[in-house]
Amino acid sequence: MSTRYTYAFEEGDSKNKKLLGGKGANLCEMTQIGLNVPPGFVITTEACLHYLENKQFPEGMFEEIKEQIARIERVTGKRFGGSINPLLVSVRSGSAISMPGMMDTILNLGLNQDTLQGLIQQTQNPRFAYDAYRRFIQLFGKVALGISDERFDVHFEAVKRQAGIKADVGLDADHLRAISEAFLQVVREETGQPFPEDVYLQLELAIKAVFNSWLGKRAVDYRREFHITPDIANGTAVNIVTMVFGNLGNDSATGVGFTRNPATGANEMYGEYLVNAQGEDVVAGIRTPKPVQDMAREMPEQYRQLVQLRNKLEAHYREVQDYEYTIEKGVLYCLQTRNGKMNASAMVRTSVEMVREGLIDKQRALLRIQPELLEQLLHPQLDPRHIPEPVAIGLPASPGAACGQCVFDADSAERLGRAGRRVILLREETKPEDIHGFFAAQGILTSRGGKTSHAAVVARGMGKACVAGAESIKIDVKQRVALIGETLLREGDIITIDGGSGRIFLGEIPMIAPTFSDELKTLLAWADEIADIKVHANADTPEAARLAASYGAHGIGLCRTERMFNASDRLPLVIDMIIADSREEREAALDKLFPIQREDFCQIFEAMSPHSVTVRLLDPPMHEFLPSERELLDDIAALKQYKTISRGLRVLSDSVKGMATGGMAVVDEDTIDRAIVKNERMLRKVRELAEVNPMLGHRGVRLGVSYPEIYRMQIRAILEAAAQCVRKRIKIQPEIMAPQVINAAELKTVQKMALELQQAIESQYRVTLDYRFGSMLETVRGCLGAEQLAEVAEFFSFGTNDLTQATFSFSREDAENKFLPLYNELGILTDNPFEVLDEQGVGQLMRWAVQAGRARRADLRIGICGEQGGHPAAIRFCHTIGLDYVSCSTPRIPIARLAAAHAKLLTTPSPTS
Amino acid sequence: MSTRYTYAFEEGDSKNKKLLGGKGANLCEMTQIGLNVPPGFVITTEACLHYLENKQFPEGMFEEIKEQIARIERVTGKRFGGSINPLLVSVRSGSAISMPGMMDTILNLGLNQDTLQGLIQQTQNPRFAYDAYRRFIQLFGKVALGISDERFDVHFEAVKRQAGIKADVGLDADHLRAISEAFLQVVREETGQPFPEDVYLQLELAIKAVFNSWLGKRAVDYRREFHITPDIANGTAVNIVTMVFGNLGNDSATGVGFTRNPATGANEMYGEYLVNAQGEDVVAGIRTPKPVQDMAREMPEQYRQLVQLRNKLEAHYREVQDYEYTIEKGVLYCLQTRNGKMNASAMVRTSVEMVREGLIDKQRALLRIQPELLEQLLHPQLDPRHIPEPVAIGLPASPGAACGQCVFDADSAERLGRAGRRVILLREETKPEDIHGFFAAQGILTSRGGKTSHAAVVARGMGKACVAGAESIKIDVKQRVALIGETLLREGDIITIDGGSGRIFLGEIPMIAPTFSDELKTLLAWADEIADIKVHANADTPEAARLAASYGAHGIGLCRTERMFNASDRLPLVIDMIIADSREEREAALDKLFPIQREDFCQIFEAMSPHSVTVRLLDPPMHEFLPSERELLDDIAALKQYKTISRGLRVLSDSVKGMATGGMAVVDEDTIDRAIVKNERMLRKVRELAEVNPMLGHRGVRLGVSYPEIYRMQIRAILEAAAQCVRKRIKIQPEIMAPQVINAAELKTVQKMALELQQAIESQYRVTLDYRFGSMLETVRGCLGAEQLAEVAEFFSFGTNDLTQATFSFSREDAENKFLPLYNELGILTDNPFEVLDEQGVGQLMRWAVQAGRARRADLRIGICGEQGGHPAAIRFCHTIGLDYVSCSTPRIPIARLAAAHAKLLTTPSPTS
Repeated sequence: MSTRYTYAFEEGDSKNKKLLGGKGANLCEMTQIGLNVPPGFVITTEACLHYLENKQFPEGMFEEIKEQIARIERVTGKRFGGSINPLLVSVRSGSAISMPGMMDTILNLGLNQDTLQGLIQQTQNPRFAYDAYRRFIQLFGKVALGISDERFDVHFEAVKRQAGIKADVGLDADHLRAISEAFLQVVREETGQPFPEDVYLQLELAIKAVFNSWLGKRAVDYRREFHITPDIANGTAVNIVTMVFGNLGNDSATGVGFTRNPATGANEMYGEYLVNAQGEDVVAGIRTPKPVQDMAREMPEQYRQLVQLRNKLEAHYREVQDYEYTIEKGVLYCLQTRNGKMNASAMVRTSVEMVREGLIDKQRALLRIQPELLEQLLHPQLDPRHIPEPVAIGLPASPGAACGQCVFDADSAERLGRAGRRVILLREETKPEDIHGFFAAQGILTSRGGKTSHAAVVARGMGKACVAGAESIKIDVKQRVALIGETLLREGDIITIDGGSGRIFLGEIPMIAPTFSDELKTLLAWADEIADIKVHANADTPEAARLAASYGAHGIGLCRTERMFNASDRLPLVIDMIIADSREEREAALDKLFPIQREDFCQIFEAMSPHSVTVRLLDPPMHEFLPSERELLDDIAALKQYKTISRGLRVLSDSVKGMATGGMAVVDEDTIDRAIVKNERMLRKVRELAEVNPMLGHRGVRLGVSYPEIYRMQIRAILEAAAQCVRKRIKIQPEIMAPQVINAAELKTVQKMALELQQAIESQYRVTLDYRFGSMLETVRGCLGAEQLAEVAEFFSFGTNDLTQATFSFSREDAENKFLPLYNELGILTDNPFEVLDEQGVGQLMRWAVQAGRARRADLRIGICGEQGGHPAAIRFCHTIGLDYVSCSTPRIPIARLAAAHAKLLTTPSPTS
Repeated sequence: MSTRYTYAFEEGDSKNKKLLGGKGANLCEMTQIGLNVPPGFVITTEACLHYLENKQFPEGMFEEIKEQIARIERVTGKRFGGSINPLLVSVRSGSAISMPGMMDTILNLGLNQDTLQGLIQQTQNPRFAYDAYRRFIQLFGKVALGISDERFDVHFEAVKRQAGIKADVGLDADHLRAISEAFLQVVREETGQPFPEDVYLQLELAIKAVFNSWLGKRAVDYRREFHITPDIANGTAVNIVTMVFGNLGNDSATGVGFTRNPATGANEMYGEYLVNAQGEDVVAGIRTPKPVQDMAREMPEQYRQLVQLRNKLEAHYREVQDYEYTIEKGVLYCLQTRNGKMNASAMVRTSVEMVREGLIDKQRALLRIQPELLEQLLHPQLDPRHIPEPVAIGLPASPGAACGQCVFDADSAERLGRAGRRVILLREETKPEDIHGFFAAQGILTSRGGKTSHAAVVARGMGKACVAGAESIKIDVKQRVALIGETLLREGDIITIDGGSGRIFLGEIPMIAPTFSDELKTLLAWADEIADIKVHANADTPEAARLAASYGAHGIGLCRTERMFNASDRLPLVIDMIIADSREEREAALDKLFPIQREDFCQIFEAMSPHSVTVRLLDPPMHEFLPSERELLDDIAALKQYKTISRGLRVLSDSVKGMATGGMAVVDEDTIDRAIVKNERMLRKVRELAEVNPMLGHRGVRLGVSYPEIYRMQIRAILEAAAQCVRKRIKIQPEIMAPQVINAAELKTVQKMALELQQAIESQYRVTLDYRFGSMLETVRGCLGAEQLAEVAEFFSFGTNDLTQATFSFSREDAENKFLPLYNELGILTDNPFEVLDEQGVGQLMRWAVQAGRARRADLRIGICGEQGGHPAAIRFCHTIGLDYVSCSTPRIPIARLAAAHAKLLTTPSPTS
């Protein structure tokens, strides 16, 4: 039996998206579940691939198509190419993975001089027919014949201008006929051929155009950006659907809707429609449509059908649907439905509400949200205390606030974005070819189009702030300016937009961290219930610990003691410690630091009670706390000069009594001298401590071995803080962690200090201290010797930042500045391994270390505290190799909590799936 | 059956050194093969360990000892503690591994007031008896009672002074009795007890002292230095041997000998003896003994016995023996024999000669020489063109030349040696407690003692230069000066000694590289026949390549192209390349470098023909070729100042016609300006290229990817040089190697350049090029991804210097300067991993990479070119994991060739063993 290339909607396998594309499978499904879908059929992705490979249709395919058309003719009583009751169709692309707007669609196919007359006769509406005809010629001309829109638009505008008409609806049949004729002439001029009259030739060319659009630049870019690889989508299917018309008069309409509000997630009718219009009018944002609520008043019967449709859709798909419909002379047709793209807060709210409604279970509620999506919720919002008057207000098309330089085209947005600038893309309306500008921009602002316009849909999908249809802004792309009232915005001027309210502001408006909605809390609590791997925070101060707790951290996985050192009240003490010439001097400085660190630990333990707090002992090389050699040389020179001037001034003021010194304070020379001496001591120390490769130098546990008094002070501060908490009956779980460890002997050296101090403090405070002692695993040697380390360590924490540096022999700062961008561009590395965990290299070391460590100590607690630890892919990997927790920066905690649940659900066979 | 703690020499298992110690087992063996050994027995090492642990003898041990004594009494007819024909014994330590001089020995035990009289009566030689007695009291007092030598020596010297006697032999019986009495008084004063009269108590105390000496500082230091671990030697045995006396008159003598000359390896009688003396007189160097050749004349019958003994020893042991003997009233007793410690050239010569004599086979000839020993042969020798008159000549006690500052005690030697100074240790004579000074010194010079004195034996064992018995030098240790004729040497003055000739020179004498003896060439040829793993050289220039070939390198494993860049005629071109602002400018500079590199490669390929030459493409970061920022700032400031001065001078010389400019050339200002501009350009580039961690920065193949024109130039130079060789019909095997590789994509980028250039050059030169393309493995990521790399690479070369840095996260320079010494001291690391390959960490990565690489490409060629590659342990490891070759610095090639044979022999079951 030879391969079939077409399937009627009634017979296609709605599960086989790979063959029928998402849209085709969906049309089959919709038809099969009883929705009123216009008759049609699907041409398979296999046919597409065959065509792209052989540059011709597979044998027999076009015959099948003819049979399908014949079937439709039988069902509808219409004739394709018939001058009486003509059959018109749409030709739509649809691949396995939705790529909205990325490929081509042609409407009203089947119109020619004959069928046009048939349509006029049948509908008694020449205006509609000519309108359809001129639309078809332009779209077919553009998509199938490659003629640019501008070539058509000039004629369209010319006719409008001649007729003195502003809105398209003002055009009458004659205007539209004139336009059609002009368009036919454009086609003749551009192609050297008349517009094809043969409807089957039209169909053939249209199908080929759709097939070809799979390899168009936009589509290829999109697939690369979203990692749509050939194994999940290869080729596009083509859907041939009987045209129904929303522009047959005031009992006709076209609209789009979401089964729930995609901006807020509210369970309400949501959508827009245009009476007497075709679908493209809504999507392109050329006319501003009405909210669906208006339909209840305007077309109550159709509104009832629409509510019914919406309910049927959710009951069947158990997912928020984004659907398109047309009302032709009072009859509602459902043209398309797909899972709705929503922003994060809407996803969260719908997840929680659908569970409560019994529509889905918790697992599905969690899995339908990509963890990274939650990042939107963690974007800053405008600070309500500092919101000025907006200069303009548009439609709140995609929530979140954004601030950046104005740019007026996608290329500029991309260029500036790559250079690290924050930009806002300003357009009258956006088109699919602007997609690269969206990726680069912080936010999108359009002066035309509604909440379902291209800009709004794409921005919501990406979680970018968008204000759409801000009609009071006049954008002049050619001059690269925008006029808001009397304010002229030039390219590069800073504006702020608030996609949640539609407000637009000049300059930069202060922003604040977001707060968690109750739904998000609920959802994350469900995630915590399911996840095996816990989420800890990297937090270094009491304030950071409290914030982490409020984000739901199950502990602090990395408390970097040196961050406490850097506070301005402590740094002078740290510097005294470093420039000390003897152990005694150093200990004197440490004695002053000790109570400060102890107090910090007390507060951190308390903030994170009853969870664990993993304190990493001093890690960076000591010279990091000192100014640079050049700074010190400058300071010393300046001080010496100051001394000279100061001396001169005093001589003057001494000799000329009462002489003003020009406002300069005459500083005591001794003070200056002391400053010089201190700076010179620092300079000596800086030179003494200078290292060739500080990343691989005298740091981490090596410092603890060389200067045991430093580690002893820190351990004492931790254990005394713990003792104080114990006495206050605060439940705590302190962990002491040594960094940069290479072998067990190093670790034992530190452990010995801890055991000695523990004994002393336990008897001093008369408490029993319960703490864990462990090792950071961030050297390759440490990973390779994990079995021996586990003899001493009660826990491991992978420091994947340093481990990645050592594995690749890349110094992060140098690599990211010098060659990593080139490596990504050339494809030598697909990702930045400092952001995306390198599972093959670094991950392999981790896997071995986990196995070896647990072989020696079965209950070894293992986590990760590198930056990659907050990324879903890394979390899934860490779950797979059996880590107990990931630790990440506080803003990423919600993402990590959801990702942790995903990791469990996606690696465990689910009973509900 | 209870454990036995003692074995008579007739019954002990001579193979069980672990139980009986080396000396004890040997005494058993000697006895059992029929040598005339004085009767005795061995107390086991188990007894020692029991004693050290429990602080008391094991039960029953002392009863066993009494039985053994009774047996000796029966055999010899003497009585222990008897006043008639008394039995005297020596009590000697002896552990499984020889530790010469490290532990204690007591002679003449069994003497007391009664037995002394018996001895006098029996020998009719009161002088001998009192001499034995005073020696015993001092030695027992020191070893068993802990009384310092000085306490005894003052009395000894006082009597000599009083009697006006210079040499000890001048003392008569009365003098010696007086000395004995004074010594007994010393013991009473020091211990508060009389000297023990009970001979069994003497025996008990002596055995305990020997046991305890196992844990003495000297012994512990020695074991640590020579890595003698408890699994190979734990505790010392004690040998109780009937005393025989070489000091019973002129028919008695004592001597030591080697079965062959340990300085030259010559097959001749070698040794020294003293008539009418005890063994310690020879060893301690108090009297200068006679060469054994004199005995042929002086005591012909005994000389005949000695020749017989020597022949028996070699025939049995098949190894050069270092033996001690005593002639008591004409009868020769063999007291001890052990494998002779010899210097490298003697070891090599005896190996080759013993094979030729049929005494041993080639495998044994190779295995008896520790590879590291050959390093001695690679020490510089005095340059014969620059040898001045020596200021003194002593005995040539251990060959090799050495130069350093004079020091007069072992502690100072150690202190200065640790500080990196080269020192020569000057002593009248050396003692076991000076051992730490030997380790630290370049050479040893003594004014007393012969070629078998302590200094000579120990220095030869260590392969250090030694001149002994230079009697014309007066050494005053207290004043820390030495007088040679009228020249006063103070501590810190530089001298040079030549241990091969005994000559001593003031100041530093130029030295030259050694030449290979025919025996060494023969031996290494045997090694090459046996070894599986080949030895290549790290060599970067044509001269270095020729030297490597003369050392027997089987290829060049690492030719660092950047070393060629650093030559003074090339560096300016390299700098032009680096400071180039455009690719064109850079290519212009590269065009100038190209013919120079090509010519280098031509010569290197030719020098190493027909072996392979592995050329590593540019590796170090580019800023390494530029001066430092500080240097440039100084230069620019100096140039500007120079310009000012220069201008001033010209103004002067212009205005005052004919005025002298003080010898300063008036330089053209333009020239100075150009220099300033160039320096400022360099400064800009230095700042632009500055990196935080250069070791992990923009270097290696990353440079090749970023600046493909550099790698292209180098590859073109390699391939054109190869093409020229091919046309000259020189057999070559070039290899192109990319450094710092992390993955296959990087490698492919470079391979593509090579393939393109190959095609062009093959058609240009009309030749076919046969070369290999491969990868350095020096990043952890590279090792972990070895399987993928092997798809591209035809060979791997482990760069264990960088791999060690990455594995440990140690920057070598920083680690060795800042914390590695402390780590070694604390035992956190037993070795410096940059010298001794870290088998557990780095070695594990290598093992995995070899397996993975060969899994993908079975004939993958794999070598190592890190510094550790020249070390025997690393070579053995590399042999074990299946590497094809090691590459090391040229001076280490002989060591590596021998080690390669060892690796094979020691890991393969040998048919002859």
